[in-house]
Amino acid sequence: MAKEITSREEDYSKWYNDIVKKAGLADHSAVRGCMVIKPLGYAIWENMRDELDRAFKKTGHVNAYFPLFIPKSFLSKEAKHVEGFAKECAVVTHHRLMNDPNGDGVIVDPTAKLEEELIVRPTSETIIWHTYKDWIKSYRDLPLLINQWANVVRWEMRTRPFLRTAEFLWQEGHTAHATKEEAVDEAALIHELYTRFLEDFAAIPIIKGAKTPHERFAGAEDTYTVEALMQDGKALQAGTSHFLGQNFAKAFDVKFLSDDNKEEHVWATSWGVTTRMVGALVMVHSDDDGLIIPPKLAPTQVVIVPIPKPTDEILAVAEKIKSDLEAIGVSCKIDKDLKKRPGFKFAEHEMKGTPVRIGLGMRDIEKNQAEVARRDTKEKMSLPLEGLPEAIKALLDQIQNDMFQKALKFRDDHMTEVDDFDEFKSVLESKGGFISAHWDGTVDTELKIKELTKATIRCIPLDQKEEKGKCILTGEPSKGRVLFAKAY
Amino acid sequence: MAKEITSREEDYSKWYNDIVKKAGLADHSAVRGCMVIKPLGYAIWENMRDELDRAFKKTGHVNAYFPLFIPKSFLSKEAKHVEGFAKECAVVTHHRLMNDPNGDGVIVDPTAKLEEELIVRPTSETIIWHTYKDWIKSYRDLPLLINQWANVVRWEMRTRPFLRTAEFLWQEGHTAHATKEEAVDEAALIHELYTRFLEDFAAIPIIKGAKTPHERFAGAEDTYTVEALMQDGKALQAGTSHFLGQNFAKAFDVKFLSDDNKEEHVWATSWGVTTRMVGALVMVHSDDDGLIIPPKLAPTQVVIVPIPKPTDEILAVAEKIKSDLEAIGVSCKIDKDLKKRPGFKFAEHEMKGTPVRIGLGMRDIEKNQAEVARRDTKEKMSLPLEGLPEAIKALLDQIQNDMFQKALKFRDDHMTEVDDFDEFKSVLESKGGFISAHWDGTVDTELKIKELTKATIRCIPLDQKEEKGKCILTGEPSKGRVLFAKAY
Repeated sequence: MAKEITSREEDYSKWYNDIVKKAGLADHSAVRGCMVIKPLGYAIWENMRDELDRAFKKTGHVNAYFPLFIPKSFLSKEAKHVEGFAKECAVVTHHRLMNDPNGDGVIVDPTAKLEEELIVRPTSETIIWHTYKDWIKSYRDLPLLINQWANVVRWEMRTRPFLRTAEFLWQEGHTAHATKEEAVDEAALIHELYTRFLEDFAAIPIIKGAKTPHERFAGAEDTYTVEALMQDGKALQAGTSHFLGQNFAKAFDVKFLSDDNKEEHVWATSWGVTTRMVGALVMVHSDDDGLIIPPKLAPTQVVIVPIPKPTDEILAVAEKIKSDLEAIGVSCKIDKDLKKRPGFKFAEHEMKGTPVRIGLGMRDIEKNQAEVARRDTKEKMSLPLEGLPEAIKALLDQIQNDMFQKALKFRDDHMTEVDDFDEFKSVLESKGGFISAHWDGTVDTELKIKELTKATIRCIPLDQKEEKGKCILTGEPSKGRVLFAKAY
Repeated sequence: MAKEITSREEDYSKWYNDIVKKAGLADHSAVRGCMVIKPLGYAIWENMRDELDRAFKKTGHVNAYFPLFIPKSFLSKEAKHVEGFAKECAVVTHHRLMNDPNGDGVIVDPTAKLEEELIVRPTSETIIWHTYKDWIKSYRDLPLLINQWANVVRWEMRTRPFLRTAEFLWQEGHTAHATKEEAVDEAALIHELYTRFLEDFAAIPIIKGAKTPHERFAGAEDTYTVEALMQDGKALQAGTSHFLGQNFAKAFDVKFLSDDNKEEHVWATSWGVTTRMVGALVMVHSDDDGLIIPPKLAPTQVVIVPIPKPTDEILAVAEKIKSDLEAIGVSCKIDKDLKKRPGFKFAEHEMKGTPVRIGLGMRDIEKNQAEVARRDTKEKMSLPLEGLPEAIKALLDQIQNDMFQKALKFRDDHMTEVDDFDEFKSVLESKGGFISAHWDGTVDTELKIKELTKATIRCIPLDQKEEKGKCILTGEPSKGRVLFAKAY
């Protein structure tokens, strides 16, 4: 297996693309901006989906499914929403093809034009709130805690696998509540749920914060974000949870009769994470030899490579280890391929990020031991066959924890407080990462800083301290620091 | 809870629509022909998906994800495929909206016309085989056993929730093989996998057969079908598995180097089941009081209703039963709603098809017993609290089995052998069901019978006996009986 991964130092962007391709996460497709998610990439997404789905259900949410298409007129019902979402999208105008009368192939049947064009959903607030109007009549129908797993399309100009694609997979939660307080609490609950998922499963340290008004979701009163840091010092928004106020309820006229018999507009939230998280996982953890997957999201946690080849004797021991591992909840595969040599297999599993590799030869078996290698640190150790499954399970926990701690240290090392615009620019260019600085609170300054440096305000951290200071650009008074960074 | 379900006898079609609506399975949407799948309907689909996904993975398949859009030109690459699929579909022609210069709202930006129109996938053979060309070079790359869970769109004229909708959810398997034999075996493996799922989980008896050449999938050499019978005597195709020969490999030029170094076209299968199965489940099992869900696919298998209301004392016992049930793998909910009375709750859970209901009051608790009711037969019984979880678990198995047996008896009672066209028409109109009759093997006769009676050949049963006879329409010689029915 030829590695040919560009090193991070040489070209971080190319390194990322190489890993996505060579680890078999995704492939380009014949459709502009759309990727093919290959089996390994999809299996990681499935694990993310299953963990999140469990957490959603545990907190009282249920799944449903709404149409792929949105009538064009729906998009303009919420004034800010249309500004943010209605522009770059896939528009369905016809519903039939016909044989080309001039010869082979098919053409669009001009007589099959739709009365109203349909938009492939870029997000589903509009069609869902149109539906909620029928479902919500009384306080008894509330809260409505619904999530949807779906594909969405945004016609992005510049795309990169997982990070930004025209079509992507995601979940979108859309909840309806009787009071403002309940809706705000729901947005906060999901914000914390995303944080726990990203930190505890994806081993990605998170900064929880609120977006500035300028960076809010189109139609939201508040947008809470989970921000992560990539190895090149750029930030990535890994998920958002929005408090929507009564904006969509008013746009779609969704009212309920309260328990004291008053008619009121419903309060709302929406929230989502996407296949982008797979890209974040690659960018946070992997190295110049390939992908590194945190054990809790790895489709295969342990691979056993028979050395030099899968003889009956070695396979008997390997199968026993595999079934013992599976019995304690560890996924394991034995690489029985006869066409490849161990060295090739080692490189292949390294590339694909399998957390633990066990090399097993007759000499090991005679000594009642196995050669165990960690993917994250490349550390190798001889472990006794007796008690091996439990030792491997503990090792996987250790790897999960070490990966998080390593990423956390990197993040903390790339968190810089600055009080001066020249220093701001210099840190941004030399070191990158999050820059904690004072800001005067105006959109003008936010945009000016972005124009001058390409850095954006990633968030106003939830744990922001009250601290008087002066805006790094204008010198105007500020009440606390916000986090800037260049971002994906 | 007002029932207001039309009885099956009065109007079977309306009965079905009533159940879908009143049990909360699906709702109409603002988009023509597209449904909203409501939480209960989606939870049943999720259970179907999870069971099938386990079975696919157990047999060596992996999941991946391919683009929603297909370039128009791809559809015409396989000649028969375009005839069958390229016509009624959603066509994306533009990628941007703009503010209407004449006022409010948005219009399609005429400058954002796509160079080549994109089709929302009606099925993915074309885009997948275009991709496989890059993935398959050598016999080492085969077999490729890939499945996709996705939404697809076919612009159907007449739609019904679950049974026929413009957008639906499905899985589509697309496999590539080095030999014809392997591909034929794969199509048969999945045919049997679908049968096992439908019979063992959905409790729907299946007839396994092959489609006639006229009824085959567009582009297939052989289509294997699983045919089920609804309570109105109409058949429903619940899934298909296709042997595609080398048709798509030739259309997309997918060749591999065999182990003896020859370049050959790849052999293929594709197979799918859809949200239509939810409709079949309703139509096979439900009654005039609502939905009946087979225990193995029920989102909630047992509901406990405190009588007359959820007091602390009753809840303590109920929670214990619930946790004991969950410990042995039975899902259970306690209906703690204070706003509804037991009678209302009973009707509601009956409507929603929960397999077992436990009524629990203080008098029951004092007698160390609980009132247990089966949804399928409405039978009620007093069971001792001691050992209740195990008794309930056994009851659920009994219900699952009884539901299958009942459906099987109905199916067998509606399987009629006829040897004469008048009898054929008379059975079709009076009794319905499957009619086993001789056919001369020609498309002309098949179409003529359909024209005269609306009955189609559902399949040539796999267990067809060799039996000489005369075609019921033409009197021409036939080698065996095939199954006719009116169908959804």
